[in-house]
Amino acid sequence: MPECFSLVERELPPLSEGQVAIAVRFLSVDPYMRRRLDDGPSYAPKVELGAVMIGGAVGEVVESRNQRFAPGDWVVGSLGWQTLALSDGSGLRKIDPSLSPASLYLGVVGMPGVTAHYGLHTIGAPKAGETVVVSAAAGAVGSVVGQLAKLRGCRAVGIAGGARKCAHVVEDLGFDACVDYRDPAFVDRLREATPNGVDVSFENVGGPVMDAVLARLAPFARIPLCGLISEYDGAGAGLRNYPMLLTQRVRVQGFIITDHLDVWPSALSELAALVRQGKLRYHETVVEGLEQAPRALIGLLHGENLGKQIVRL
Amino acid sequence: MPECFSLVERELPPLSEGQVAIAVRFLSVDPYMRRRLDDGPSYAPKVELGAVMIGGAVGEVVESRNQRFAPGDWVVGSLGWQTLALSDGSGLRKIDPSLSPASLYLGVVGMPGVTAHYGLHTIGAPKAGETVVVSAAAGAVGSVVGQLAKLRGCRAVGIAGGARKCAHVVEDLGFDACVDYRDPAFVDRLREATPNGVDVSFENVGGPVMDAVLARLAPFARIPLCGLISEYDGAGAGLRNYPMLLTQRVRVQGFIITDHLDVWPSALSELAALVRQGKLRYHETVVEGLEQAPRALIGLLHGENLGKQIVRL
Repeated sequence: MPECFSLVERELPPLSEGQVAIAVRFLSVDPYMRRRLDDGPSYAPKVELGAVMIGGAVGEVVESRNQRFAPGDWVVGSLGWQTLALSDGSGLRKIDPSLSPASLYLGVVGMPGVTAHYGLHTIGAPKAGETVVVSAAAGAVGSVVGQLAKLRGCRAVGIAGGARKCAHVVEDLGFDACVDYRDPAFVDRLREATPNGVDVSFENVGGPVMDAVLARLAPFARIPLCGLISEYDGAGAGLRNYPMLLTQRVRVQGFIITDHLDVWPSALSELAALVRQGKLRYHETVVEGLEQAPRALIGLLHGENLGKQIVRL
Repeated sequence: MPECFSLVERELPPLSEGQVAIAVRFLSVDPYMRRRLDDGPSYAPKVELGAVMIGGAVGEVVESRNQRFAPGDWVVGSLGWQTLALSDGSGLRKIDPSLSPASLYLGVVGMPGVTAHYGLHTIGAPKAGETVVVSAAAGAVGSVVGQLAKLRGCRAVGIAGGARKCAHVVEDLGFDACVDYRDPAFVDRLREATPNGVDVSFENVGGPVMDAVLARLAPFARIPLCGLISEYDGAGAGLRNYPMLLTQRVRVQGFIITDHLDVWPSALSELAALVRQGKLRYHETVVEGLEQAPRALIGLLHGENLGKQIVRL
């Protein structure tokens, strides 16, 4: 797949009235990007051949013909994989540089954080004492889900790949438990980690991992269906335990956070406050240079990152 | 499976204070019964070996030591597979004998009708012009779902097994279309019958039929998950198209109508009014004699019935 990308140099045209030029400092790398590279049905337009790869980014305004922005402003928006981006200002937000590093606006105080917040609170609606399970628990979304669940008084159980990630999830992020899906005894370990069943399953992965969680669902469980990363490279074996959705009267809600722009401002300010108070921790995996972005995406899809995957330019 | 049942004669004890004796006239035969015969996790207690088979029934009070009931009253309740039943009156409802036959209280004006009403209106919440698909469309629940959808101004598309059932669904019940899942071109026929996709999928069957409908879901579709009759005799091949739940941001809600006793009175009176007005049609498949009940259940699980399966005693 790296050969599907090419690095192209182009002169930018001079700014039109209303435009800003932004020197991009951090690129976001996210699982949803994989689906934008497919031809099949998706919730968003695909990336056309020859176009700039899409993606969120943080940068610094270097030139402006837009009254809302001045050189030196730091901004976040859909700037794509490029070192210098032009924008008409739509969808561009100024960020507070006192919250540092600015890459946090791509992670815990950005789209992944809002995704975790909305999916857990609005769809999952966990009550104190309930058990919340989240897959891809060491990732940008999952790491926030479990910590928010703990703040609500829930038992937070992560699922992640490998001992290093599981140790991070429990020791650094404060989850009650984390189960390694690569462990041959995964199903038994998951059962031991969820003695009262699972009330909320925040689903990022799909496939056999999701199937194992379905078998543990408690009556009236809720499943915020956020991602299915195991399915993005082609059809898997299918979900076998879906009859539990009936037996336990479960609610599943697929969601895409860009459908819910109204919740972003309040969620972002809550997440920023929690970070400032030291109640919400984060980890970033950072690679250097635009040319590393394709490998960073491939690595992410294979679970190589810990926390938020960032490309620093 | 007929050999799993035996016909036993027993003397009933004399009535205690508060009890009524009921001569059972009609037994209900329903898909959910299959799961009560399993040992696995279910939403309700299993039928113990040697116990009377459970089930809804309509009968006539023949003796009463309960002030709420008098000999000659017709009642509906969980009386089980027996010719004469004792009851303490809990869960027993008097029925209006002017709505005839009284077996309707086991079907369109009973549990299956309320199931259709609640699942479609409360979970499916279809708007006029939307497309509603229902599997097992010729059955007791499905036949009501499609007719209620038509009354809401929706396009109603049934799925049923065989040409006879499909003709009944369209010609007698007034659905816009019905697709035969046994047709080798089922997937193509379903696509043709749902040119604008599927907004509400009322699911009674599961398995490959459900998979085909998942592939047709429209954005923000709703799935009232009512039954999975294809899975009741052991695990199927698994659900392959579940990623559509994410792509289309779908809501799935498993439900069991006995969790929602509060909606029964209003739903039942609305259904009875529609039957009286000739706006809600029904069909019954009736067999005679208690000894036919096991075969009626097996036939139902193999899709042999048209409409509500009743045993007349």
